[in-house]
Amino acid sequence: MGCSNEHAALAADVLLQADLRGIDSHGVARLIGYVRLWENKRINTRPNISIVHETATTATVDGDAGLGLVVAPFAMRLAIQKAETYGSGWVSVRNSNHFGIAGYHALMAVEKDMVGFAMTNASPLVAPTNSNERLLGTNPMCYAFPAGKYPPVVVDMATSAAANGKLEIAQRAGKPVPEGWIQDAAGNYTTDPYALKAGGSLLPLGSDKEHGSHKGFGLSATVDILSAVLSGANYGPWVPPFVAFLNPPADPVGLGIGHFVGAMRIDGFRPIEEFKLHMDNWVARFKSASTIHPEQKVVIPGEPEFEAEADRKANGIPLVDAVVNDLNGLSEKFGLSRL
Amino acid sequence: MGCSNEHAALAADVLLQADLRGIDSHGVARLIGYVRLWENKRINTRPNISIVHETATTATVDGDAGLGLVVAPFAMRLAIQKAETYGSGWVSVRNSNHFGIAGYHALMAVEKDMVGFAMTNASPLVAPTNSNERLLGTNPMCYAFPAGKYPPVVVDMATSAAANGKLEIAQRAGKPVPEGWIQDAAGNYTTDPYALKAGGSLLPLGSDKEHGSHKGFGLSATVDILSAVLSGANYGPWVPPFVAFLNPPADPVGLGIGHFVGAMRIDGFRPIEEFKLHMDNWVARFKSASTIHPEQKVVIPGEPEFEAEADRKANGIPLVDAVVNDLNGLSEKFGLSRL
Repeated sequence: MGCSNEHAALAADVLLQADLRGIDSHGVARLIGYVRLWENKRINTRPNISIVHETATTATVDGDAGLGLVVAPFAMRLAIQKAETYGSGWVSVRNSNHFGIAGYHALMAVEKDMVGFAMTNASPLVAPTNSNERLLGTNPMCYAFPAGKYPPVVVDMATSAAANGKLEIAQRAGKPVPEGWIQDAAGNYTTDPYALKAGGSLLPLGSDKEHGSHKGFGLSATVDILSAVLSGANYGPWVPPFVAFLNPPADPVGLGIGHFVGAMRIDGFRPIEEFKLHMDNWVARFKSASTIHPEQKVVIPGEPEFEAEADRKANGIPLVDAVVNDLNGLSEKFGLSRL
Repeated sequence: MGCSNEHAALAADVLLQADLRGIDSHGVARLIGYVRLWENKRINTRPNISIVHETATTATVDGDAGLGLVVAPFAMRLAIQKAETYGSGWVSVRNSNHFGIAGYHALMAVEKDMVGFAMTNASPLVAPTNSNERLLGTNPMCYAFPAGKYPPVVVDMATSAAANGKLEIAQRAGKPVPEGWIQDAAGNYTTDPYALKAGGSLLPLGSDKEHGSHKGFGLSATVDILSAVLSGANYGPWVPPFVAFLNPPADPVGLGIGHFVGAMRIDGFRPIEEFKLHMDNWVARFKSASTIHPEQKVVIPGEPEFEAEADRKANGIPLVDAVVNDLNGLSEKFGLSRL
């Protein structure tokens, strides 16, 4: 596509880490989507990523329409640099594109014994409580904390009840989805996994008012404001769609999509070894919680991804046929050898 | 109780703001609870609140077992000072007590044209996904953003599906609660509003695994770690109970309960007037979203509290008889005039 070797290697690393960590929806399966956006001239493969506004511990970065896969790591490196000097660093990003898994960026801070934060807004698919209009993305937020003998605790979650990938799994399996994930175009709850494609919308975390969907809406709003209103990116229904066959809105309120990343030095609060000792105690206590069904243990946030990583590093990454076909198609297009 | 005039006035202000904003559960109705904790020697009315660890933009504060109502504003003032100089400020707090509504503290930053963050851990009442053990509090998180012509956007939410106050309302009304709020001691879903008192537990936001309760658990864990593992407060099941008739655990892992507050200067990212213009556009767009039922509009986070404030400033704060009786009992105890 014309990326520098450095950018191509970094983008590939972000995608491969998603596959390694078992988040197949955000790995090499997405490569064809990025290529299509580039073909539609919506991704700049030679971006001049720049800092457009700055204080000692805050900054706004303009991604110059580059791959979010390289723009977000640029922003996180800046946040980490600021944290090294001043204790914390916070970077809001405009004019970017889909950044892959939030956990990749947050874990960059964890490697430096910092708390890592990463969030992004995304194509509007989610309706706020009381509405049947798609005004928000699945807007993920990630908080990552180092531990001692245990792997880092990584909370990496869409702020909707279910992400789009889960609908696709139900579609492939020909099965209905649970009530509380989606509503149809009129705003009626439905279990039809195709309802989203037919003009319906995803529901915020909490699913309905009685169960706190206004909280999921509030979290999604927080991601949207920190990522886009703060940086000058598009927000709400103006966020450009990830899929290349849908055009961005003709009346943008900002530039591209937005991210927000941050890093805080743990030893800005207490000695790192003390913190890790207590993190290990926290993890151990929750892992040993009494269970309702003995075979279903309490799962520490991030644990399934670290288990997937260990397994896939040893045994390889399984790819479904559709992804292999997509990758071989890309290989032919770019004159590379097939898988 | 022996507080300084300054501390008494500040604590009263935090409680009154809760009542004014319509959050009756956290207003003067709680006064008797704080008094009981003081009678049990769990609140120090003359605390020496101190900074025990610090960088340019981070700090850990020890509340010296004082009222959270005065400790948290101390921490937020420190965060704001750091943000004024360096762009952002972040303070984790140990050895504190219940801090009232999170929104009060976050809004201190909004008054300075900053983004405000406030969270706290709390008495263990919530079970993580797959467990029937109470290991987490309702652990609220608050994010507050200034707007221009609209009131600030304030996301202030418990990370459980429902807070304890909603069970009490159902108890008084003699009504069942929706499935998805609580489970009984064995971990079965129940609609009995007394199940919590009978050894059951509240459920995380998302209610069950299919609807993302692991996300509510992850958010609650984030609050617990930032508030307590980072500061050296108690976390998880070791958090001392708010009610005075339950003793704190005999094997504490830290000091008191923990909070986490932060402030970021908006003009550390973009000019404040630009931000407010886009916040107004954001709010206006969501307020005008198409609705499923015409009489149920999209509610902007924080809007109901600002509407309650306008109403109660004009018409007064209604108090239920039980609260009036409690306050009159306190008046007699302290030799003050009755309401």
